[in-house]
Amino acid sequence: MDCLKPHGLKTDLYELTMAQVYLERGKTKRAVFSLYVRKLPEVRNFLVAGGVKRVLDLIGEFKFSKDQLRYLKSLKLFKDWFLDWLEQFEFRGNIYAIPDGRIVFEEEPILQVEADLPSAQILETFVMNIVHLETLLNSKAARIYAVAGGKTLVDFGYRRAHGFEAGNAAAKAALTCGWNATSNLEAGMLYNLPISGTMAHSYVMVFGEEEAFREFYRHYPQNAVYLIDTYDVLEAAKLVVGLSKEGYKPLGVRIDSGDIPELVVEVRRLLDTEGLKDVKIIVSGGVDEYKIAEWRGLPIDGFGVGTRYVTSADKPYLDIAYKLVEYAGEPKFKLSEGKKTYPFKKQVFRFYSNGRMDYDFVTLYGEEAEGEPLVELVLREGKPVKDLGDWRVARERFLSDFERLPEGLKGLEKVPYEVQIDARLEPENYLSKPQGE
Amino acid sequence: MDCLKPHGLKTDLYELTMAQVYLERGKTKRAVFSLYVRKLPEVRNFLVAGGVKRVLDLIGEFKFSKDQLRYLKSLKLFKDWFLDWLEQFEFRGNIYAIPDGRIVFEEEPILQVEADLPSAQILETFVMNIVHLETLLNSKAARIYAVAGGKTLVDFGYRRAHGFEAGNAAAKAALTCGWNATSNLEAGMLYNLPISGTMAHSYVMVFGEEEAFREFYRHYPQNAVYLIDTYDVLEAAKLVVGLSKEGYKPLGVRIDSGDIPELVVEVRRLLDTEGLKDVKIIVSGGVDEYKIAEWRGLPIDGFGVGTRYVTSADKPYLDIAYKLVEYAGEPKFKLSEGKKTYPFKKQVFRFYSNGRMDYDFVTLYGEEAEGEPLVELVLREGKPVKDLGDWRVARERFLSDFERLPEGLKGLEKVPYEVQIDARLEPENYLSKPQGE
Repeated sequence: MDCLKPHGLKTDLYELTMAQVYLERGKTKRAVFSLYVRKLPEVRNFLVAGGVKRVLDLIGEFKFSKDQLRYLKSLKLFKDWFLDWLEQFEFRGNIYAIPDGRIVFEEEPILQVEADLPSAQILETFVMNIVHLETLLNSKAARIYAVAGGKTLVDFGYRRAHGFEAGNAAAKAALTCGWNATSNLEAGMLYNLPISGTMAHSYVMVFGEEEAFREFYRHYPQNAVYLIDTYDVLEAAKLVVGLSKEGYKPLGVRIDSGDIPELVVEVRRLLDTEGLKDVKIIVSGGVDEYKIAEWRGLPIDGFGVGTRYVTSADKPYLDIAYKLVEYAGEPKFKLSEGKKTYPFKKQVFRFYSNGRMDYDFVTLYGEEAEGEPLVELVLREGKPVKDLGDWRVARERFLSDFERLPEGLKGLEKVPYEVQIDARLEPENYLSKPQGE
Repeated sequence: MDCLKPHGLKTDLYELTMAQVYLERGKTKRAVFSLYVRKLPEVRNFLVAGGVKRVLDLIGEFKFSKDQLRYLKSLKLFKDWFLDWLEQFEFRGNIYAIPDGRIVFEEEPILQVEADLPSAQILETFVMNIVHLETLLNSKAARIYAVAGGKTLVDFGYRRAHGFEAGNAAAKAALTCGWNATSNLEAGMLYNLPISGTMAHSYVMVFGEEEAFREFYRHYPQNAVYLIDTYDVLEAAKLVVGLSKEGYKPLGVRIDSGDIPELVVEVRRLLDTEGLKDVKIIVSGGVDEYKIAEWRGLPIDGFGVGTRYVTSADKPYLDIAYKLVEYAGEPKFKLSEGKKTYPFKKQVFRFYSNGRMDYDFVTLYGEEAEGEPLVELVLREGKPVKDLGDWRVARERFLSDFERLPEGLKGLEKVPYEVQIDARLEPENYLSKPQGE
């Protein structure tokens, strides 16, 4: 695989050209950058934080090897003293974050980096890429989970994810956000995820349906799900009935194409009539939350969800930003239309009412409030403060937040959630101070 | 980075459960699988093949380590003899492909795998993921290139790509399809790509505009592009004029927000009036082919294109499939509505008229025709037949095809291209033969 280690080059050129100027001009005081989503997509009512654990796992390897430094030297932009600085680099600053699995909204800082300015600047691309991908996937997985109403959800997306790395992230995000399993073996091993799978059309075509099902059962009696849409779904369903009577009764059948509402009703009726009420019907092929909602009420027990999930197809990116909010103790902000930023390091307090999330309040970090604080110090002077736990822990956070999420936000229609911003964060307060100094 | 080597686990569970049954039941005759796009998206008039070289580069590492075999054993689905088979596995079959950079259309096999059935089956997820991602990105990059009409294009997308792997793939795809540079340093080193970059708002906020620009010029006089939208674009443009008179004349200015049509006209007028006709105007922030088309005729010299490119935002996946088309010399196909497949190993011939592509003809592999054959044998019995070359070679293929692409297909409106399918490939011809045998 062409992924390079260490991770220092996971950056854009300008991070390093700027850092060289910062260092040469003594702009090395404490800076705070905030990584947050400026605006929720129209098609998301909430986000689920992700990537924080991965940032902490990998940040110790955000360094530059001799080969990488030689490459940078070849660009003829960097001075030897700066390449020496990169060679010595390890991140020794602080990170404040909202842990993986927590439900978050716009303007809430998922990750805040506090360090000398050059160190905090050169992390930009690295932390954005990780947090963006995992938050994007968690949020999509959670939206699908919210609509599925307890039906089984299995990630089938590895083959059409944007690379293996994204496929593995998607498998982990699915399990973080309430799904049941993934078909992705690499992710299964990497993260110890529950694994699931059925059979392909090619397999059915090679054996013919009857032999295909029989052989599969013989090999995997505990795991047999028969794919019944290679030729004629109802004929195949009748075959399943016959085989079940001979002892080859599967856990379920999968339908991957055709007129789903019509087919599942007929197949269910046939199976029920023949005493196969416990044989599940699994649907795959172009499934996403919109299809799942459209098919609500139909006799479908579970979904194989692939491409549209792993690519977050209805919105494949978030309006995420990594913005300088404080330098040398001074507020930093931008006033541009649609891109206004609030200065200072922040805390988010969440307020509940009758066991449900009521509103969030974004304020200065260090302030006290009645609500539940979401932001934690997770890395102090380059060292992890505590173990954030694996996907199972993130899943507990997610399920606990999801239970307290207002019901309206769980649907597909746009429903807003109130995020109050402390008036003291309004950039207008600081306009008298010249920004450039 | 959490990417595992070797690559054998880059697969879905069912590939291995099916392979075990194939082996036990002697279904090990020669199979051909075809990887192709069933239908072009509404928002693509052509695709650009990608991923073939990467498949060839990585396929020798499609193996299973002891640790991975131990993991598979722990799933309690596989027998020891099958795990032994996996331990010995290396791909020794043939691959036929359309090389990276060639323009392709629906039903054209970008990659065909020919091997004993179990070997060809277990590659599915691996080859699909690679070819899907690179073809998706090439096709999006080429569409943007087609609309940009020779203006400079720089990939700014690393931070919001779906993982670092996808970001690196996007940088390579951009350069393959006619772009000028990328800001991504890791891809720059990995693939030896031209690198470019400017400065961030944070940098301008720390120094203030005047000092920020001056310092940047002092450090990078050959590469200075000033970011002029942190506060007031026109004020900043006036500052650029003043600095240029003092000798700090940049290559260009970048505008990342605001009312672009209005701003670029005013900035251009100001720069021209002041004798700075050669100072370029670069626009970034939410740029894609739709914006570029909308802004046609405006005085913009180049674009920084990020998120919407690297995520292929208007269509983040292709309807790509890996289908069994032949087994033991017999045709294999599927008749399902919208998912019909054509049997047999295929060749594609391209016909030209007046120097432009006229139509393509998909036929049996091994047939002769007057047109230009697109499919080549690239891997014979597990060994590369020839070096396909790096992105520069793929870029030559792309630019050469692009020159011969009908003009209508280069725009944003849907224009079809004729792909004829040889009547001998029609599955209806083979319906008399039972499919299941």
